[in-house]
Order: sequence, then C-alpha cells, then structure tokens
Amino acid sequence: MITSSSNPKVKQIVQWQNKAKERRSAGIFLAEGFKMFGEAPEEWIREVYLSEGIQDRASAIPGMSEKLARVGCETVSQEVFRKMSDTQSPQGILCVLKRPQYSLEKLLNIPAPLFLVLENLQDPGNLGTIVRTGEGAGVTGIIMGAGTADLYNPKTIRATMGSVFRVPFVCTEDLGQAVARLRENGVRVYAAHLEGERYYDSFSFREGTAFLIGNEGAGLSAELASRADSYLKIPMEGSVESLNAAVTASILMYEVHRQRHCS
Amino acid sequence: MITSSSNPKVKQIVQWQNKAKERRSAGIFLAEGFKMFGEAPEEWIREVYLSEGIQDRASAIPGMSEKLARVGCETVSQEVFRKMSDTQSPQGILCVLKRPQYSLEKLLNIPAPLFLVLENLQDPGNLGTIVRTGEGAGVTGIIMGAGTADLYNPKTIRATMGSVFRVPFVCTEDLGQAVARLRENGVRVYAAHLEGERYYDSFSFREGTAFLIGNEGAGLSAELASRADSYLKIPMEGSVESLNAAVTASILMYEVHRQRHCS
Repeated sequence: MITSSSNPKVKQIVQWQNKAKERRSAGIFLAEGFKMFGEAPEEWIREVYLSEGIQDRASAIPGMSEKLARVGCETVSQEVFRKMSDTQSPQGILCVLKRPQYSLEKLLNIPAPLFLVLENLQDPGNLGTIVRTGEGAGVTGIIMGAGTADLYNPKTIRATMGSVFRVPFVCTEDLGQAVARLRENGVRVYAAHLEGERYYDSFSFREGTAFLIGNEGAGLSAELASRADSYLKIPMEGSVESLNAAVTASILMYEVHRQRHCS
Repeated sequence: MITSSSNPKVKQIVQWQNKAKERRSAGIFLAEGFKMFGEAPEEWIREVYLSEGIQDRASAIPGMSEKLARVGCETVSQEVFRKMSDTQSPQGILCVLKRPQYSLEKLLNIPAPLFLVLENLQDPGNLGTIVRTGEGAGVTGIIMGAGTADLYNPKTIRATMGSVFRVPFVCTEDLGQAVARLRENGVRVYAAHLEGERYYDSFSFREGTAFLIGNEGAGLSAELASRADSYLKIPMEGSVESLNAAVTASILMYEVHRQRHCS
C-alpha cells in the first residue's frame, strides 16, 4: 500500500490532474469513480488506484472485483487518495487511461453520419454535457478545434458520465479543413447562427449532417460559419439572445434523432 | 464614495451574497453586470453600486446613464467592490432587487400554458440554464418545490442571463398540490421518466402542458411521478442512462415550441 504522497506514482497523478500539457504529452487521461471504471474499455486502462478500505464496496458491485483482478490495481491510504483525487468527495477509485485515436476517414464511411463541430467551446461542463447528450442522440463523432476546452479535463470527463468511452472524437488544428472534408463526403454542414435565415426544424436531417457550434459568448467565427452550406437558428421567444451551447447542440441533435426515427 | 469594507451597506451586501436565508428574509436578490442591470425592471431595483472608474464604461452603453440617474446609485472603491462581488472578474455594477411575486392562478388563465415543475433540482447552473431556455421556448411559468436549489443564488441568477426578470416562477412547499391544480385547470402533466412508456415526440403538446423534471441523480420521486397524467421518455442511444436535467427540460420545451409553431 502506498502511504506517502511523495511516492513518485502519486506525484505523477497529482501532476496529471492539474496539468493538461503533462496529460497530453503522456497520452493519457484520468477518470474517477466506480461508474467510470466499470465502463472504461479494458484495453484503455493503464493503472488503477483504490483507496484503502474501498475493497468491500468494490466487491459489492457485480463484475467489479473480476475487472480489478484482470487489469490490476494498487491500494493507497485514504489520506494519499484524497490528494490524488480531483473531487471533494472521492469515490475511492481512480484510473489512468490511454487516449483513444479515431480517424475522421473511418467515421465518414458510416452511412448518414451526424457530426458536431465545436469551435472555441470554453466551458468544461458544457463540453462534457455535449458528449453525453451526443451519445444519447446517436452522434457519429465530435470534431473539436484547438481552441476548444480540453476534453480530458477531469471536470469534462466527469460531465460525460462515461460517454467519453464511446463517442468518437477528432481534435484538429484546422477546423476549416475538417469542414471541407465533411462536405466533400456529402455531409451537409449547418452553422448554428443567430443570423440563420431559417429555423432548424425546417431542414431535413435524414442525410449526413454536421452542426457547427461556436463559443459560448462570441458564437461562431465568421470564417468558419462561411464554410457552412446553410445557417440555421433556433427560435427564441421573449428577450433571449442566445441559448447555452450545450442546450443548442442538444436541441439540434435530438431534432435529427426525431426526424430519423419518426415515420 | 464608500471606501471602507466595514461600511454597513457593504457588510450587508457581502452577507446577502453568501447567505440564502438573509436574502430570503429581506425579500431581495442580487445581480451583477451591465446586461443584468440594463434588463432589470426599474420597479424591482432597490440599490445600485458602481465600482470607482466604471462611470465611463457605463456612459458608453446606450440608455445606461439615464437608467442610473433614474434609479440612483452609489460609488464604491475598486477594492471594496471586489469584496462585494460574487465574481472573479467583477463588471463593476451590482444591484439589489426586490423579489417578484407571481400567482399560479393568473398564470393558469393564459391559454394553452406551458409549465415546468422542478423537483429537487440541485445544480444552480442547471436551474439558471432552464430559466434561460424556458424563456426562449416560451414557457408560461416554472414551478419549483422547496427542495430545488435557490433561484436567487448568484450563480443561478448569472446563468439565467436576464431571463429571471421575465420568466414567471412559483415556489411552493407542496408540489403535489400544485400539480393537482394544473390538472384541475386542464393542463396535461407529463413526468419525464426513464420508465416512460412512450417517447416524448409521440405526444401532442398543443394544449396546456406541464413537464415534471426531477433531481439530477435520483430523478423524480415516485410520489410526484404518480400524479402525472402520462410518463414520457427521451430516446437514448448507446449506453446513456439519463440526460442532464437542463438538457431534458430544453428538449421537451422546444418540442412543444416546434409542435405549436409548425403548420
């Protein structure tokens, strides 16, 4: 059992919790809690840490002891675990996971794909919620520009509620080029834009569809928006000037789902 | 100009920022920023505080100086303002506002009303987002039980983006009775429930409609859900077990809007 917070493994975890750059250069991310560990693909798991005394709780969850035995784990004292954890009430299990790699090419081979393209989305909670809702609505993949918040931020990982393990995503330095690739492959690209000329529910989304979603405050850049096939907007009553980015993405993705599943 | 943080007005504001009970017993709430001040109904405004040196910025916003002159304001030093503010980067304007009073009876007189009923919603950001999206979707009113987060929490107020000034809401100790009143008045009440037997988009929401939205983790209580006319659910692909409460409310409210506005 690790009982010292100067143990190199513990120091490494603390660094990974706080530094996006260190996580990126190691090619890993962290996830906490039994739900996250339970849903993590085994081939992604590199290390697992359990807080002392949590074994009983683990054994009570079906399949948990077996998974822990297969992937291996290390026990640390409660005090050390509190230091390693990003949460105020740690659940007592933390894993280090290898980052997945997805290819936009392969995602484009899926029939009638549904993509989200996120430009400069800043709020980690919004990003996590979008990934979670994306899985629910059946998104094919999420494309993120370099200016978007770190998907592997512990807050974002938590907000995905496990969807980060299942929703393919592609990070790119050049969103404009990614949009061009979508269009070359027959995907119709819509900019969610306050100046959209038509409401979202007047379009048919039965074919390949992508939505461009911009920054919470500033919206989409004119440069990226100009690459869309069409601008669309969500109607807003009262004096509302815009909707939360995660709400906008959710309404659009579920409209696609509704259209594709209703007769 | 107030330059001391032991000034009684300053101490009062700091207490109101931090203590829901004190805000409640005074019948007030706080809002910060030029957008919030600009949208606040004048008859609600009790006090306005400006940070030293912010007058120029205020004068540059159309109508701002006139509104400040009409309602009156007091200047405080930058250091004192930072203590009074709830935000890390204060915008330099803070107002004390009288809480509005709405009557469910009057809201029920509106033809084909749309209500949200929130039970034990815990996250201030979610609550604010629901109020903001509610205004956008044309909600008639939001009914909140005693277990729901404080609408007047500074975080919630911020997340409403001004919609708190325009969306009617009713707080009640007895949600069950409020639901009974809705039904007596011909409003159809739907429980958003994971065990719903039909998908949300198979219902017609053209008549009076209310959605019951439960706690982020536990969902609706069986007791309140049993008072609904119907259970409905949002389809979820993949392994998603539930959606964020604000996302659920947004998808449902915009489905109502879509049905009522499409031909």
